[in-house]
Amino acid sequence: MLGLMQDWPLLCHRIIEHAAKIHGKQEVVTRSVEGPIHRTTYAEIHKRALKVSQMLERDGIKLGDRVATIAWNTWRHLEVWYGIMGIGAICHTVNPRLFPEQIAWIINHAQDRIVMTDLTFVPILEKIADKLPSVERYIVLTDKAHMPQTTLKNVIAYEDWIAQADGKFKWKDFDENTAAAMCYTSGTTGDPKGVLYSHRSNVLHALMANNVDALGTSASETMLPVVPLFHANSWGIAFSAPSQGTKLVMPGAKLDGASVYELLSTERVTHTAGVPTVWLMLLQHMTANNLRLPDLKMVICGGSAMPRSMIKAFLDMGSNVRHAWGMTEMSPIGSVAALKPPFQNATGDARLDVLQMQGYAPFAVEMKITDDAGKELPWDGKTFGRLKVSGPAVAKAYYRVDTNILDEDGFFDTGDVSTIDEDGYMRITDRSKDVIKSGGEWISSIDLENLAVGHPAVAEAAVIGVFHPKWDERPLLIVQLKQGQQATREDILAYMDGKIAKWWMPDDIAFVDGIPHTATGKILKTALRDQFKDYRFPNAAA
Amino acid sequence: MLGLMQDWPLLCHRIIEHAAKIHGKQEVVTRSVEGPIHRTTYAEIHKRALKVSQMLERDGIKLGDRVATIAWNTWRHLEVWYGIMGIGAICHTVNPRLFPEQIAWIINHAQDRIVMTDLTFVPILEKIADKLPSVERYIVLTDKAHMPQTTLKNVIAYEDWIAQADGKFKWKDFDENTAAAMCYTSGTTGDPKGVLYSHRSNVLHALMANNVDALGTSASETMLPVVPLFHANSWGIAFSAPSQGTKLVMPGAKLDGASVYELLSTERVTHTAGVPTVWLMLLQHMTANNLRLPDLKMVICGGSAMPRSMIKAFLDMGSNVRHAWGMTEMSPIGSVAALKPPFQNATGDARLDVLQMQGYAPFAVEMKITDDAGKELPWDGKTFGRLKVSGPAVAKAYYRVDTNILDEDGFFDTGDVSTIDEDGYMRITDRSKDVIKSGGEWISSIDLENLAVGHPAVAEAAVIGVFHPKWDERPLLIVQLKQGQQATREDILAYMDGKIAKWWMPDDIAFVDGIPHTATGKILKTALRDQFKDYRFPNAAA
Ligand SMILES: Nc1ncnc2c1ncn2[C@@H]1O[C@H](COP(=O)(O)O)[C@@H](O)[C@H]1O
Repeated sequence: MLGLMQDWPLLCHRIIEHAAKIHGKQEVVTRSVEGPIHRTTYAEIHKRALKVSQMLERDGIKLGDRVATIAWNTWRHLEVWYGIMGIGAICHTVNPRLFPEQIAWIINHAQDRIVMTDLTFVPILEKIADKLPSVERYIVLTDKAHMPQTTLKNVIAYEDWIAQADGKFKWKDFDENTAAAMCYTSGTTGDPKGVLYSHRSNVLHALMANNVDALGTSASETMLPVVPLFHANSWGIAFSAPSQGTKLVMPGAKLDGASVYELLSTERVTHTAGVPTVWLMLLQHMTANNLRLPDLKMVICGGSAMPRSMIKAFLDMGSNVRHAWGMTEMSPIGSVAALKPPFQNATGDARLDVLQMQGYAPFAVEMKITDDAGKELPWDGKTFGRLKVSGPAVAKAYYRVDTNILDEDGFFDTGDVSTIDEDGYMRITDRSKDVIKSGGEWISSIDLENLAVGHPAVAEAAVIGVFHPKWDERPLLIVQLKQGQQATREDILAYMDGKIAKWWMPDDIAFVDGIPHTATGKILKTALRDQFKDYRFPNAAA
Repeated sequence: MLGLMQDWPLLCHRIIEHAAKIHGKQEVVTRSVEGPIHRTTYAEIHKRALKVSQMLERDGIKLGDRVATIAWNTWRHLEVWYGIMGIGAICHTVNPRLFPEQIAWIINHAQDRIVMTDLTFVPILEKIADKLPSVERYIVLTDKAHMPQTTLKNVIAYEDWIAQADGKFKWKDFDENTAAAMCYTSGTTGDPKGVLYSHRSNVLHALMANNVDALGTSASETMLPVVPLFHANSWGIAFSAPSQGTKLVMPGAKLDGASVYELLSTERVTHTAGVPTVWLMLLQHMTANNLRLPDLKMVICGGSAMPRSMIKAFLDMGSNVRHAWGMTEMSPIGSVAALKPPFQNATGDARLDVLQMQGYAPFAVEMKITDDAGKELPWDGKTFGRLKVSGPAVAKAYYRVDTNILDEDGFFDTGDVSTIDEDGYMRITDRSKDVIKSGGEWISSIDLENLAVGHPAVAEAAVIGVFHPKWDERPLLIVQLKQGQQATREDILAYMDGKIAKWWMPDDIAFVDGIPHTATGKILKTALRDQFKDYRFPNAAA
């Protein structure tokens, strides 16, 4: 028997409609790409988003068509975001930090019909435009006064474009499982893979994020998402903030410490969210200039692990910090390290220990850890295994890729390796392709690296698994020493000895002049594996 | 094009599964019906709910079958709640405060196969049992030691019943639109009407309620729902609390001021929810005994309008108060009077003015006000009209009733009359059957009553519309004077004059010795209308 409740599909544009109706006067403040601070409201954004929809229809865009954005966090990006989704087209947020060839590959794979771009990215697009046959026109997110000379096809300034619409337009109703947005994972190997969010998944994710123990904002608070809209929905904030009427402060193109600090301070921001690199720049700027942020209640940090020292720095300045873990395939929130009751009053190291974990899953995210055979492992905080997830905002497939990516229970393998403790707190210990498999047992490369950098002479450390005739794989520690410092293989091994299980000890240490990194600052282990592909352990006599 | 997100149906039992996994140690504390305080955890409740499912299956209960509960808020009620829903059966919460004949009518209409009852209600059920042919067995929510002698058919003590199960049971997966629970509206006229919640509507409502600006609890807080599980899902708390791991304190059968105070105090409750009558008893008890509740952060009050003096009393003792409005047909939350930014720092009367309104709609509740012809009215805080609502947790029909209850836009008429202001704050001004329609214009009976009771000699006032040859209907003010006080028709009219529009002034005043009330303390206007059915206005010369 079915319930007798209304058929009210969960559609993204209902969020901005709600914001306009109930929180219409709430502000959205942007550091515009052109320079000045720009102020608008949810009511205005809603009105202009309707014009975007009207113009898209006039340009022939239909349900299911892809429209790309290559843009910073601004009010205009929000407008086109909702305007695209409101007619059932798909908002494809392109990451401008990718190589131009990757951008071209992605736009072609998605078959985007229109590209909306910030001024910043016009030169990049001009360079690849002749390789983008599906793109019919470019819309530059600016006004006539700032419009550059450009060779882009059929180009128009955004403000001129929407000025042609009167906004007398009604958004569509359709199945909530209709695709709403699309985001490609960068992926260190292979082609980028497109994640296709639905209206339903985005709305459910917003409701989840509104939870007190997740992002936890309200109509009385101000959120500055440093994390870009092109980075996995800006962690859902473009949906969750308007759904609650939270004031939004959009940083535009300037993510340096001074610029972010200025906005946090002048707009009295209470909540902010971004990756560790951004917080490092902010903290350095604040320390150098002896600055404070008395209104800042909560810093959400995700994207990669947040160093303990950073957590401490925020706590010391009186802000709360929440470590969040997630991925593009999860819309993206997978866990948040909110403090549960037993830890609520923990202080010092005990508090840091909890905050440094990646946190626990909110309702509507299910987790399990398994061994390679798929057998579930215990939640004891020690055993680590492949982290697999399930939920209404978790991907079940990639766009135009025919491989099944779910296990027999419908769980998606995150590619991360983690422990989960009895309170549900999850801790990432490795990427599954980096974990070292020694005689069937797993060794965390990250744990070894964290330990090795504790040695006073070590600048950076990386651990990779290298073939071993007896154990299959054993850890090789690769070390870059600090300028002018000295340490031998034996010094470092002696330092590590006793701090980890005997069988975790690296079989050898290689000293290098520099360790290669990805564009986002992660250690590029593929390059290291390549560099050491002919390496053989001295103790590995066959 | 559809999105590529996982098919993860929103099922109620996933909430308690999540609570058991992530917040398994979190406590659920109950004042048991037998007397002592009982402590358990979400992990235990989950385990025992599985046994309930297992036993229900053994008793032949299948998907879509109705199982009734007539019970207070206790851990056992929570267990059977989730146990019933976990196999796709329908948890029909029966309101024990109804007359026995109504209870029988409802059980027969729902065709309940099993009735789970608290000890309290065994005598009532014995009296009507022979009129309940659909009921195959009774389960008394107690243990062997407390089992009474009873004539109930096929009866068993709950603890004996679930002791037969080993709990090795897996809950079912099914369409999220499957019916999960059922609640009949008391309805002052006509037969009671059954509202049939779906798994989807209950889960979405829980996510909505978790919003900071709604119930706003978290894993670090403690919620005491005084509002019963049989009163519209206890406002969703039975779902929202476990979905976040909020500690629950269940008051059992004792809702008097002293008992509620004791639990609030000893369990250091931070959030509580209930109707004004309950808060009146609590405040009286606290004042009489000079008591405080320093941990109590938030009092949610709904079900009927909260008097201004009550809001002030809670603010004065340092708690926040949130007025909530809703109804059984809305799962039930329709609006919450959280303070939005412009009012966040309001003090004194300005703050009370906002808190006294019924509040604004959270995301996933849509509202409109219309005239009798269905034309939408402006949100200006003055114009009032029929309040209509829409959303995924709003009813579209009643159980086994064939009438369409939605308008052409799919909105449900709440039967309430209200204003909505430009910030979205809604204020109930009347029930639509009580509003006085004078020459096509509406007069709020509640506004007149509130004004009249301001006169020092008036104990209680009620306003009804009485036939008028020229205006169709005009207001008659019915007044009960305070014991030993005097006031004439002219005194009271003079007091009201100038405080409302001229044409709102009552055409006459009738003095009575007592005003009739419903079981829940609302003025029984049907009885008054009957009493004054032959009344004619002195000024109504034909
Ligand atoms: N906060 C409130 N203020 C005034 N009336 C209320 C409030 N909450 C509920 N009601 C009334 O109670 C009705 C719902 O009754 P029920 O379905 O029994 O909960 C609503 O339609 C309103 O008339």
